Amino acid sequence: MGLTIGVDIGGTKIAAGVVDEEGAILETHTVPTPSTPDGIVDAICAAVGAAGRGHDIDAVGVGAAGYVDEKRATVLFAPNIDWRHEPLKDKVEQRTGLPVVVENDANAAAWGEYRFGAGQGHDDVICITLGTGLGGGVIIGNKLRRGRFGVAAEFGHIRVVPDGLLCGCGSQGCWEQYASGRALVRYARQRARATPERAGVLLGLGDGTVDGIEGKHISAAARAGDPVAVDSFRELARWAGAGLADLASLFDPSAFIVGGGVSDEGDLVLDPIRKSFRRWLVGSHWRPHAQVLAARLGNKAGLVGAADLARQG
Amino acid sequence: MGLTIGVDIGGTKIAAGVVDEEGAILETHTVPTPSTPDGIVDAICAAVGAAGRGHDIDAVGVGAAGYVDEKRATVLFAPNIDWRHEPLKDKVEQRTGLPVVVENDANAAAWGEYRFGAGQGHDDVICITLGTGLGGGVIIGNKLRRGRFGVAAEFGHIRVVPDGLLCGCGSQGCWEQYASGRALVRYARQRARATPERAGVLLGLGDGTVDGIEGKHISAAARAGDPVAVDSFRELARWAGAGLADLASLFDPSAFIVGGGVSDEGDLVLDPIRKSFRRWLVGSHWRPHAQVLAARLGNKAGLVGAADLARQG
Amino acid sequence: MGLTIGVDIGGTKIAAGVVDEEGAILETHTVPTPSTPDGIVDAICAAVGAAGRGHDIDAVGVGAAGYVDEKRATVLFAPNIDWRHEPLKDKVEQRTGLPVVVENDANAAAWGEYRFGAGQGHDDVICITLGTGLGGGVIIGNKLRRGRFGVAAEFGHIRVVPDGLLCGCGSQGCWEQYASGRALVRYARQRARATPERAGVLLGLGDGTVDGIEGKHISAAARAGDPVAVDSFRELARWAGAGLADLASLFDPSAFIVGGGVSDEGDLVLDPIRKSFRRWLVGSHWRPHAQVLAARLGNKAGLVGAADLARQG
Amino acid sequence: MGLTIGVDIGGTKIAAGVVDEEGAILETHTVPTPSTPDGIVDAICAAVGAAGRGHDIDAVGVGAAGYVDEKRATVLFAPNIDWRHEPLKDKVEQRTGLPVVVENDANAAAWGEYRFGAGQGHDDVICITLGTGLGGGVIIGNKLRRGRFGVAAEFGHIRVVPDGLLCGCGSQGCWEQYASGRALVRYARQRARATPERAGVLLGLGDGTVDGIEGKHISAAARAGDPVAVDSFRELARWAGAGLADLASLFDPSAFIVGGGVSDEGDLVLDPIRKSFRRWLVGSHWRPHAQVLAARLGNKAGLVGAADLARQG
Repeated sequence: MGLTIGVDIGGTKIAAGVVDEEGAILETHTVPTPSTPDGIVDAICAAVGAAGRGHDIDAVGVGAAGYVDEKRATVLFAPNIDWRHEPLKDKVEQRTGLPVVVENDANAAAWGEYRFGAGQGHDDVICITLGTGLGGGVIIGNKLRRGRFGVAAEFGHIRVVPDGLLCGCGSQGCWEQYASGRALVRYARQRARATPERAGVLLGLGDGTVDGIEGKHISAAARAGDPVAVDSFRELARWAGAGLADLASLFDPSAFIVGGGVSDEGDLVLDPIRKSFRRWLVGSHWRPHAQVLAARLGNKAGLVGAADLARQG
Repeated sequence: MGLTIGVDIGGTKIAAGVVDEEGAILETHTVPTPSTPDGIVDAICAAVGAAGRGHDIDAVGVGAAGYVDEKRATVLFAPNIDWRHEPLKDKVEQRTGLPVVVENDANAAAWGEYRFGAGQGHDDVICITLGTGLGGGVIIGNKLRRGRFGVAAEFGHIRVVPDGLLCGCGSQGCWEQYASGRALVRYARQRARATPERAGVLLGLGDGTVDGIEGKHISAAARAGDPVAVDSFRELARWAGAGLADLASLFDPSAFIVGGGVSDEGDLVLDPIRKSFRRWLVGSHWRPHAQVLAARLGNKAGLVGAADLARQG
Repeated sequence: MGLTIGVDIGGTKIAAGVVDEEGAILETHTVPTPSTPDGIVDAICAAVGAAGRGHDIDAVGVGAAGYVDEKRATVLFAPNIDWRHEPLKDKVEQRTGLPVVVENDANAAAWGEYRFGAGQGHDDVICITLGTGLGGGVIIGNKLRRGRFGVAAEFGHIRVVPDGLLCGCGSQGCWEQYASGRALVRYARQRARATPERAGVLLGLGDGTVDGIEGKHISAAARAGDPVAVDSFRELARWAGAGLADLASLFDPSAFIVGGGVSDEGDLVLDPIRKSFRRWLVGSHWRPHAQVLAARLGNKAGLVGAADLARQG
Repeated sequence: MGLTIGVDIGGTKIAAGVVDEEGAILETHTVPTPSTPDGIVDAICAAVGAAGRGHDIDAVGVGAAGYVDEKRATVLFAPNIDWRHEPLKDKVEQRTGLPVVVENDANAAAWGEYRFGAGQGHDDVICITLGTGLGGGVIIGNKLRRGRFGVAAEFGHIRVVPDGLLCGCGSQGCWEQYASGRALVRYARQRARATPERAGVLLGLGDGTVDGIEGKHISAAARAGDPVAVDSFRELARWAGAGLADLASLFDPSAFIVGGGVSDEGDLVLDPIRKSFRRWLVGSHWRPHAQVLAARLGNKAGLVGAADLARQG
């Protein structure tokens, strides 16, 4: 089989990329993300058409945030787009004339890393994506495990604090409220507000106000040794590592891959995660430990993974 | 293939049963559980020999509490027996002359229920065993999922309360501290101590003291409507159901099977678990719900499951 | 000393009442609550003037939500009005020509109940007010205890859940997020969303939607036995009672008085609070237990208490 | 009034000290702590007699762990000695012929610090004692506040983690399980077990085993920069500071005094406590902050405080 197209639906732009069997992206076409549900379907088809022009495309894989049914055809629910039981596969197939596979975007990213990134050589891999929220995917026995109804691996919404923070999902105490880019910003702002004299570097990188602190400032400040930024990463890592320890108890993979924007900081964030993982790993003396690896494909993982899943059919 | 033997290692007795391809137990032989690690190995072999006499046995499956390695040969760690890297498969094979498979006992029980009990007809099943502690097993795609190193599905030790109760495993806040027979007794005793006037029935069933309250008293009292017993089951159910909701987010099975002594109470405990499960299931409007089923094989599930796993080779 | 005026600043109206030495309200004058900070000062003075006409008034007590300094003169911070270091005493004294005492509104309500309501005859009383939020006041040795800086008894903001719900105060896990009218509504909505078939009565009392559920519906539904409403009150009571147990460990009063809108339901909510209080009271076998009493003055407690504090000077 | 005797009942020895009006200890007599309840009463009387010989003693103050009734006469319950409704005042008065006051030992220590130690000059002081457990005392308006029934200021047993660690008191999640010498040892052992390679200094100070780690090793290791020891103090400080923030919300004192063995480390532990206190103090921008001070009297605070309380009558 030859080339396939992977589609990544972002908040500001939709990217369609032509991907070969080795996971290389030959060409990418991006369009702005429209504001209406139907507009987004149109944009996906347009991006696919534009990217595929001049290539012999076998199939299309679309990564979408939300619940995708077990047939990989319908988006049952999307958190950011008003799709409810949206028959995305049918619509895009009719408009592009190509076979389409729809996949949860974090699942697609996990598959991308497993096939072409940090997960190569592993049969059983768990990938978590620390972006704005926390997503993930499960590969067991070299297969993506989607669950009976297609909605497995919703890591971000396991409850890590009973009666904890409200989550956009309507539940409380979800892991993504404690281990995600959004959580990192909250940690930093809370600390900067309580002890501004410790947050000089951090505040100086933004507009000087606590509410002006953003993720990029925290990363830069942490690299400069700002104590509030360092503490904020540590708190994030405490929650991330403890959650990985739980996933080890459940899935016992050979490796965890940590992706998403937060992981761009590399060992600045991965080392504390590893430390916390070991701290909380149950039975750690009596079992082999999974590795905790940094993702390698960056924000291309979803697109590449979706394309590859489409190739697998 | 014909008959196999399943072995169940209990705290007071070891049972070996001859099991046919339909999961029927043709004959069982039990011996008292010795107090030494080596004695237990001897007793297993003796029980297997006695049970198998006069039968044509193809293989032996031994269910053992603890970590069993990925080759299903070595008990890496057992919580109740002083086995550390114990080569149980080799020892029992040499002594019995039969092929042996060692499996975690909760995995074996899950497999038993999947094959011959409440899980029949499901491809993706999660089984939890609410006994003294909390164990479980995962079947995905009709296969028992043991993890890369053999130690998956250690449900009892995921952290459900940060900084929570100390667990025998050395960690804190483990699920089995909140959802297990031992937890049920703690709930009842705490309540009976605080409000003895509400616990009349319950206290009357034991020796009249709070510390004399045992699981069987709580069950009987709950059936009689004792408010402390009913509240204790409800609290157990709150934690059990919330944990199942997390497992649904992770594994998305078509069914959960609840076994173990606590589940003997049937809908008295299952209905509140179902209610709590629905209460905490994330995205419950947008996804098909897994069923929550009572186990059917009772305390034979482990023996039957171990025998069947041995048959599968 | 003769008559004093108490002022209650509500979200929709400001009430000034003439109160005698027995705590009886002789006359009340109300004005709508203006939207600007200065407008509210004007309205307070206008209401005081109107209520006092024809009476011989000795002093004015103003109850205000927020931090009031140790001189009972300045509102350091108000959560709902843009008062920051607002010299309210000076302003109202200049405009009315009367001596003024400013007091935190929950402190004033506690004092009212202590003097003329459920707290009569007790020397050491803790009052909690379960309104939209959770406030309170402390009387020890027959004196209102305001703290060194005037900001004691901020019960609503002790942390009862580490890493818990965000609070308007900027902190997390504050008691008022779990025990207040707002919490009650959250409990009911979460349950009605998860298990609408159990919430028929409750949903029928509002506009039929989950988001249309309000406090008054929950009260009515609970009286009619609606299981979701009953469960919601129970959850509120669990948190309220556990918090009272903590306050008993700290203050050891002879009585707790529970006021605020939630307490209007009487024993429907007080009995579960008492049960939870006993459940969590440390050392309950070895110590006399504080009583848990319903407030008696309803929403007049703050006005009457403020007037009486002004009388005491 | 002249000299009084203070008595401190320790686990290994009982000390009686003659104290003057300035809080100076003129003479101390110690005897080993007997193992029986009656033996301890004998020993107290013997120590008082021996210490007082040659002095003109006006009264005796006895500090005892546990609940002491509002008359300061009866020990209602002692955690470490089998005293239940023990009429200690009467017994010691009869045997010594001196007026006796019995006081909770942490209350006595708080009073000692308030009168002659770090609390001098403050009217409203909260003292916490981080020893094996966590005790405390409350001074408001220059008076020790004992509660209506004598059992106030049981700081160690407020619930800081719902469903948290079991406490010796029978409850769960008590503050002293997270902020005390015992907690510090648990933190260090858990970390040393999980990541022994980070705990080299710490392990080298004891017998080389994790279970051999004791408080004194953690202090020494922390001073030497051992990361596990430093992290353990930080975790203790997180919980201690967060609890002080709650006490500030409730009592609003002008100063907190931190005593007990853990506080011997001075700023090594006080600085992180102060940082955590500020982190969690609600409304910190709008209120004056209480100081967090190190205790000054060390383990003499209880003896001196008890003697002084006896002088006050």
